[in-house]
Amino acid sequence: MSIITLTTDFGAADWFVGTMKGVILSLQPGAQIVDITHEMPAGDIRAGAFALAASYKFFPKRTVHVAVIDPGVGSQRKAIAVQTLNYYFVGPDNGVLSLALAREKIQAVHQITNEQLFLRPLSNTFHGRDVFAPVAAKLSNGLALGKVGATIKKFVKLNWPEARRTADSMKGEIVYIDRFGNAITNMRNGRFTSMGKSSCEIFLKDKRLCSLQEFYQAVAHGAPVAVRGSSGFLELAANGDSASKKFKLKVGQAVIARFRPH
Amino acid sequence: MSIITLTTDFGAADWFVGTMKGVILSLQPGAQIVDITHEMPAGDIRAGAFALAASYKFFPKRTVHVAVIDPGVGSQRKAIAVQTLNYYFVGPDNGVLSLALAREKIQAVHQITNEQLFLRPLSNTFHGRDVFAPVAAKLSNGLALGKVGATIKKFVKLNWPEARRTADSMKGEIVYIDRFGNAITNMRNGRFTSMGKSSCEIFLKDKRLCSLQEFYQAVAHGAPVAVRGSSGFLELAANGDSASKKFKLKVGQAVIARFRPH
Amino acid sequence: MSIITLTTDFGAADWFVGTMKGVILSLQPGAQIVDITHEMPAGDIRAGAFALAASYKFFPKRTVHVAVIDPGVGSQRKAIAVQTLNYYFVGPDNGVLSLALAREKIQAVHQITNEQLFLRPLSNTFHGRDVFAPVAAKLSNGLALGKVGATIKKFVKLNWPEARRTADSMKGEIVYIDRFGNAITNMRNGRFTSMGKSSCEIFLKDKRLCSLQEFYQAVAHGAPVAVRGSSGFLELAANGDSASKKFKLKVGQAVIARFRPH
Repeated sequence: MSIITLTTDFGAADWFVGTMKGVILSLQPGAQIVDITHEMPAGDIRAGAFALAASYKFFPKRTVHVAVIDPGVGSQRKAIAVQTLNYYFVGPDNGVLSLALAREKIQAVHQITNEQLFLRPLSNTFHGRDVFAPVAAKLSNGLALGKVGATIKKFVKLNWPEARRTADSMKGEIVYIDRFGNAITNMRNGRFTSMGKSSCEIFLKDKRLCSLQEFYQAVAHGAPVAVRGSSGFLELAANGDSASKKFKLKVGQAVIARFRPH
Repeated sequence: MSIITLTTDFGAADWFVGTMKGVILSLQPGAQIVDITHEMPAGDIRAGAFALAASYKFFPKRTVHVAVIDPGVGSQRKAIAVQTLNYYFVGPDNGVLSLALAREKIQAVHQITNEQLFLRPLSNTFHGRDVFAPVAAKLSNGLALGKVGATIKKFVKLNWPEARRTADSMKGEIVYIDRFGNAITNMRNGRFTSMGKSSCEIFLKDKRLCSLQEFYQAVAHGAPVAVRGSSGFLELAANGDSASKKFKLKVGQAVIARFRPH
Repeated sequence: MSIITLTTDFGAADWFVGTMKGVILSLQPGAQIVDITHEMPAGDIRAGAFALAASYKFFPKRTVHVAVIDPGVGSQRKAIAVQTLNYYFVGPDNGVLSLALAREKIQAVHQITNEQLFLRPLSNTFHGRDVFAPVAAKLSNGLALGKVGATIKKFVKLNWPEARRTADSMKGEIVYIDRFGNAITNMRNGRFTSMGKSSCEIFLKDKRLCSLQEFYQAVAHGAPVAVRGSSGFLELAANGDSASKKFKLKVGQAVIARFRPH
């Protein structure tokens, strides 16, 4: 089995993703290609990095994960292929791989420079098709990582906001809004596991929004609620509605979780 | 061959569907996973039930159909796995499976309770990934249905409007608007097969909209037309345009088909 | 290996594409089905033809390419299956295949008339499912092309605008706007390969828009730029922004590329 996942901002509206798959299947006919998402906002490296980090580990070992959010395509930005204990990661060296890599045991990072692997003529605007698809297909097919180019010591790491803990609170921010309008924060679920029901209140600046509950329907329809989210982080939601629209939540907005004494 | 279909409201914007596929492929590496749709309006159980009912029977026998429109995820709503003469169906017990099941010969209905099949830690917000994906993968892989949990007698059936026939008319309603703006009614094509051209007129309340024709282009560009639709029900369309927008058609709106004497 | 690609205007919102895949897998269980795109504007034959032409050649030989932009479905328009040196093409005879076919060495064109290959009952509104999916599956499975119906001499060719060259310029037009807002023209990259940097200026009517560069980030963020695009044609873009929105670019708009003397 040979699984290759794709995380991009190419969208479904055009033929871009389809051509990447054609290139992959031409080189690795047995590949199972799985779309993580192609609907990242154009050029939004942070969103792509978060989507990849939230999904990559649900795949079997040796899966090749390709992420192409690549506003600098054709410029001097590097392309990299990374081997970790369990996976391969392939993409531009702009941080889009870095959130996933921060959770993995990295074994080798190589710059992709071997032009013999690329499609010819090489375009300057679509390395997803001409560079990353063929490199991923060949790695999936058994190509030694060293064949893509020399090892490098450093790769670009995303500037990611870490939540901070105080005696009786966590301070973080919203890092992603999903299609349901749920606002995912950077506060890990693990911080909230040992608490009883309603033992935690969520504030936006000084205004209380809601309390932590076990699931969405623990509150009335349309009411705000915080839950331990499926991506591993605290989420702000509205039961059956879009919290983002209803409470005007935005990426970057500060969120405070206050623990109440039992 | 092992085919698993997915019908959800998870959308393509995030990584939710991709992670379900990763879970499935981890447990059943040879699975062919087919997206029916992931763009059902959030929480719209009726739309999901209709989409599944309109598509499931075009798949080979033993296909496992998974439908996850699941606004009650994490609450006390049950999860079920159903075996019919030809297929398996897996999803929340909220009616989303019920329109398809009404057309199938049901052999067994089991409540999904065997936590050994679930992903750990089990989230309270994403049973598509943590419950339904692994159960579907294992059923597809040959797991006996009885292993998911005990049989149950009853499952939730959607409250579905049935069209009514009178001496010279059918009275029904619009149940779905598709991406072309075609309005699908609950009046079965079979009621309209023995009639000649233009022998049937469509009314919205007391106002005539159009007549029944054999295909869209039987009328002028932009004109309204009724056709026997591909999902098995009468559809209201506009040739080359959106009937929904042009004639302000909505789900739930009453439609009357009047048969004219020959 | 048996690859079948799909290019349609069926969208992801409903179950149409899923049912096509069910039909294909019922007849050809080992098929690898690849979505080129399903988001062509409804009924936009030109956009579908361009998408297919931009992507088909990245697939392995013997791939079966299915394109269904089919506003005339159910009417007297023909259905065709075409064998070229490297591929099969299947779709309505309305021009949607013609841009790809113009680049291929055609070996045989057959009208699809053999009703034994179709799904029963045959709908008048969804030949993607009832005609093109089963024909593609069976061709992929080894059916002789002659079994679909008799050969025909002529098929419908799209009226495609060709760019014109003068002594010091190319005159063309915008033929496609992609999801990034890049405007793809009908002027082939090959016309622009031998020129040095900034040796070419792009005009909309008499107003200069930008110069030709090697990649998007060669200009400031938000600034207009022309590049040799990945689909083989000159593209007008805005670095990190939507050129279409920012400069009000539309399909059909005239574009002039003026070569400057060295």
